[in-house]
Amino acid sequence: MKPIKISEAVVRRLPIYLRFLNELSFSNIQTVSSQELGEKLDLNPAQIRKDLAYFGEFGRKGVGYNVDYLIEKIRHILKLDKTMNVALVGTGNLGRALCNYSMYIKDNMKIVAVFDADESKKGTLINRLTVQPMQDLCSSVELLDISVGIITVPATEAQNVADQFVAAGIRGILNFAPVVLKSSPGVRIHNADFTAELLSLAYYMDHNNGSTEGDETK
Amino acid sequence: MKPIKISEAVVRRLPIYLRFLNELSFSNIQTVSSQELGEKLDLNPAQIRKDLAYFGEFGRKGVGYNVDYLIEKIRHILKLDKTMNVALVGTGNLGRALCNYSMYIKDNMKIVAVFDADESKKGTLINRLTVQPMQDLCSSVELLDISVGIITVPATEAQNVADQFVAAGIRGILNFAPVVLKSSPGVRIHNADFTAELLSLAYYMDHNNGSTEGDETK
Repeated sequence: MKPIKISEAVVRRLPIYLRFLNELSFSNIQTVSSQELGEKLDLNPAQIRKDLAYFGEFGRKGVGYNVDYLIEKIRHILKLDKTMNVALVGTGNLGRALCNYSMYIKDNMKIVAVFDADESKKGTLINRLTVQPMQDLCSSVELLDISVGIITVPATEAQNVADQFVAAGIRGILNFAPVVLKSSPGVRIHNADFTAELLSLAYYMDHNNGSTEGDETK
Repeated sequence: MKPIKISEAVVRRLPIYLRFLNELSFSNIQTVSSQELGEKLDLNPAQIRKDLAYFGEFGRKGVGYNVDYLIEKIRHILKLDKTMNVALVGTGNLGRALCNYSMYIKDNMKIVAVFDADESKKGTLINRLTVQPMQDLCSSVELLDISVGIITVPATEAQNVADQFVAAGIRGILNFAPVVLKSSPGVRIHNADFTAELLSLAYYMDHNNGSTEGDETK
């Protein structure tokens, strides 16, 4: 089967659908309409129908979408049907918050190793993971089949950590440091840039139209 | 003067420009070309020129943009030329990480009050701020002229906190909880949804093209 090409905006909405569908499934709700999804997720139902039609899933008129089927389908598209092991570098407050965040496990993204350049943190425990020194990165990535790296170090150290990730064979990076990292061929970098989200918020506060970002069909 | 209407994608790039320009200014670098900006920020220089032309700033050929002038201009566009006071609710690891994050201060977004529903946290100190109980929210928002609220509570409590923010007169919300909040008229909600960033990363790791998200001109 040819892999489906989906736009970046759609790919970013799929985890949002997935999260809500998981909630429905957990509550034993078996069908959902695009209208209900739209109301709950603050998105246009037509947009949702268009997104879901991308991968050949059409809700039945008057019945809606089958929740569990849709979950399976989205997980498959996002390649979350197999577990992805994640390494995290930087065990400050943010790093610890992420380690304690249980949601990853449900969606098959799991932090399995934690590192810190600070030798004094070596051996301490965070959510049952032992903090390791940076020189263990390469061997752990191989041993634990880690494919994704999370960076929660200060901006000045982030590029160095990214380079070490890439050298260790990691091909997907989620960067929390407020700095743009140089990319390497074959490596995908996403930025969880909350300071940009915060600062761009200011722009909308006088030009206000009362909408959330979800209203926009990008 | 008529306010400039800028697309959402451009507004979200402005803080990224601003951050790098601040670094240049700090290093006493007075001019920068769109080429240099593009290389550093992993963006297309043509895109950068287009973005900056939006608000009437054109670099001089062979000289580039005046760094300090551009900083002033972007700050003005983002309405960061006056300080915006921020309240944060939820003092877990993530909330504490944000309070300790000094960057806000430089860009005139400043966390000035911290709240937690957990009575046992009342009175504890985080980065020189005293944790307050939720019933103090309204009075603090008024007293400290707070216009932005940050939510770092569990998903199940986030809507309740958002409603309390809105009732207290807050008109801009940055939500870190993994849930889509119902918006109210006149209130802008941004989501710092790193789980969506993480999960969407998986999609790109086999379809890989080696690009970072910044490569796309949205």
